[in-house]
Amino acid sequence: MDTTAFTNNLQKYAQLIIKSGCNLKAGQELFISISTECVEFARLLTAEAYAQGARHVTVKFHDEKIARLHYDNCPLEVFESVPEWAALLNNSMAREGAAILSVVSSDPYAMVGIDQAKPVASAVASHAACKEFYDALDLGRVVWCIVGAAAPAWARVVFPAVPVEQAVAQLWDAIFAATRVTAPDPVLAWEAHRASFNERKQWLNEQQFDALQYRNSRGTHLTIGLNARGIWQGGGDMTIDGTAFFPNMPTEELFTTPDRLRAEGVVYSSLPLVHNGALIEDFSLRFKEGRVVDCQAAVGQDVLEAIFKVDQNAARLGEVALIPYTSPIRQSGILFYSTLFDENASCHLAVGQGFPDCLEGGQTKSEDELLAAGVNKSATHVDFMIGTPDLQITGITASGEHIPVFKDGEWAF
Amino acid sequence: MDTTAFTNNLQKYAQLIIKSGCNLKAGQELFISISTECVEFARLLTAEAYAQGARHVTVKFHDEKIARLHYDNCPLEVFESVPEWAALLNNSMAREGAAILSVVSSDPYAMVGIDQAKPVASAVASHAACKEFYDALDLGRVVWCIVGAAAPAWARVVFPAVPVEQAVAQLWDAIFAATRVTAPDPVLAWEAHRASFNERKQWLNEQQFDALQYRNSRGTHLTIGLNARGIWQGGGDMTIDGTAFFPNMPTEELFTTPDRLRAEGVVYSSLPLVHNGALIEDFSLRFKEGRVVDCQAAVGQDVLEAIFKVDQNAARLGEVALIPYTSPIRQSGILFYSTLFDENASCHLAVGQGFPDCLEGGQTKSEDELLAAGVNKSATHVDFMIGTPDLQITGITASGEHIPVFKDGEWAF
Repeated sequence: MDTTAFTNNLQKYAQLIIKSGCNLKAGQELFISISTECVEFARLLTAEAYAQGARHVTVKFHDEKIARLHYDNCPLEVFESVPEWAALLNNSMAREGAAILSVVSSDPYAMVGIDQAKPVASAVASHAACKEFYDALDLGRVVWCIVGAAAPAWARVVFPAVPVEQAVAQLWDAIFAATRVTAPDPVLAWEAHRASFNERKQWLNEQQFDALQYRNSRGTHLTIGLNARGIWQGGGDMTIDGTAFFPNMPTEELFTTPDRLRAEGVVYSSLPLVHNGALIEDFSLRFKEGRVVDCQAAVGQDVLEAIFKVDQNAARLGEVALIPYTSPIRQSGILFYSTLFDENASCHLAVGQGFPDCLEGGQTKSEDELLAAGVNKSATHVDFMIGTPDLQITGITASGEHIPVFKDGEWAF
Repeated sequence: MDTTAFTNNLQKYAQLIIKSGCNLKAGQELFISISTECVEFARLLTAEAYAQGARHVTVKFHDEKIARLHYDNCPLEVFESVPEWAALLNNSMAREGAAILSVVSSDPYAMVGIDQAKPVASAVASHAACKEFYDALDLGRVVWCIVGAAAPAWARVVFPAVPVEQAVAQLWDAIFAATRVTAPDPVLAWEAHRASFNERKQWLNEQQFDALQYRNSRGTHLTIGLNARGIWQGGGDMTIDGTAFFPNMPTEELFTTPDRLRAEGVVYSSLPLVHNGALIEDFSLRFKEGRVVDCQAAVGQDVLEAIFKVDQNAARLGEVALIPYTSPIRQSGILFYSTLFDENASCHLAVGQGFPDCLEGGQTKSEDELLAAGVNKSATHVDFMIGTPDLQITGITASGEHIPVFKDGEWAF
């Protein structure tokens, strides 16, 4: 490994995350959630945040192996509530306007075999106890940013053929490439990236499609209703007080929140999905009246079923996202086994929580108003990849006109 | 390094800590504070706690390099308050009767050069915000245990002449030896160790000394008043509901809390003191009417002075402890640069918080009653070593009789 280049890239990556991802303001608090496997990177992010004027940085370390010990040893009831202090930590960070930074580095196999009722209970309890926190994220009250960091167990899965040190180095390089860190000025590169979404976003918003129809040779045959006054987003987000940020780095998607009550047909997965530390492969979902009514997976059936049990809206769609089959991340040829990356390699859908900012005026609407307008509300949000080289997507207008959106896995306009 | 022996010792150490140190009960919560440098050991302790029936283990990781970044970058006011969530974490653990386990592994030089006003402010704020937590520890409401774990930066200071991996291995071996982990059955060894204190403890308690007089050739010439109905403790502690535990592992001391208002004379240090991540060497303290009125250090004068500024009682004694000069830890020849270990190599004193259980019925007395009885109350507690091979300690009874306690650094009875 070229250590100087690596150190240089890591530094540029940390700067990019704090400056562009979080758009950290002088005097602001930064809240970092990060694994014990990434201590060095946590220090680098903290130093960078202070260099950019943070008032204080709160770093919350979690450890996957300890989390696994909890799952293996604690009874279900332990996961059915969130300690008050932990809820207060999240909620107070949101209340005080901290930038919320999550660094993901999970071993895709860390939780294989655990009782799925436990992470489900945990998600439900967390969403209830940390409502102020999640609302702040969903309703644009705070900046939030999810990024990746290489760690040995994850790297081993992505690059199984090489020694682990080399796998970690290769995973870092893949992360740097995916996040444009190798550009001479990554911050400028991300500004250009943000702008690159505008033309297609504008076209999609002008169409005001009533539905999207998906077809491919794997058997996908699905129609998804879109909301009146729905908005396509992509290339970054903005808080209600006008701070631009990037919720995900990388991001290659144009996305919206569909009508939670309208989805009919069957859709087939095109990439493995890592969920709650376990793998789901070769799966299909059948929708009826917007709800998943049947699911089949060659691997991970219990993990797949658990997704839809989180709450009554967990089986309804919260997101449709469009990414051409030849996206840079797909072209890298790397399967990351991490939704943060893999969702940018493929058209995808997500069940669970929808995005209020994908509806005109959505961020100031009440929960009931959002539900009535078609924006789903759930304690979960799980993306799954459905893009194939022969995927056809057709937009259907309110007047019944059919307009090609994707042709053979690529933009049709 | 003999990896099998090391793994075996580490496992025995974790078992000993959970079983003897914490005396963890089935269904109990365990609260571990530990450095990110000791992640593997945190996992081992967690696994052992579950194996011994813990209901849940809460692991709070801290990172010294990030703490240093806070000190270097945050203004003083940040340290003058404790985030509500952090106070709630500590207080709720005490309220729920968790066993409180702290693992120390500090780099003795981690905080050299920081503004001492910051850790002082932090200690004061923490003591106020976490009053329920500290009271639970001081008044025997919860089990608490402090142990050591080797980490590279610390090991480098203790064993500077060898490569760092070897230094870490040697430090682990020194910890194992000091904590009797190398005994065939460490749990039994600690029971025997507990019992070994009884005879001398009983003798000391029977004397009901009114004062102790310290003399040596370095210039120490100090008389410390002892409390009426004071109690000498040592070889483990007990909660008010009768759970036996070891607050410190190792422990070689017999100790009591002296009269906060009576100390006269000068005392010279016999070992370096690491405090707030900085070294204090070759220092002396002059007491008048129980209070430090002058202090001089060859190294770390500002750090030394800061100790007494924490609050109005930080310059008064909270502890006197007797350890023969030939204690096992002194005989190991290792200077640990860590009070947890070094205090067991030497007679010492501590300024700051006293021990309510060193007074008859003390754990059920109010703060005012304890103060009136002579037990000091402070947000800090700092031990410093004063034992030399020529130290003479004389007990003075209420009737003025002089009885030798230490002669030439060793027990005189």
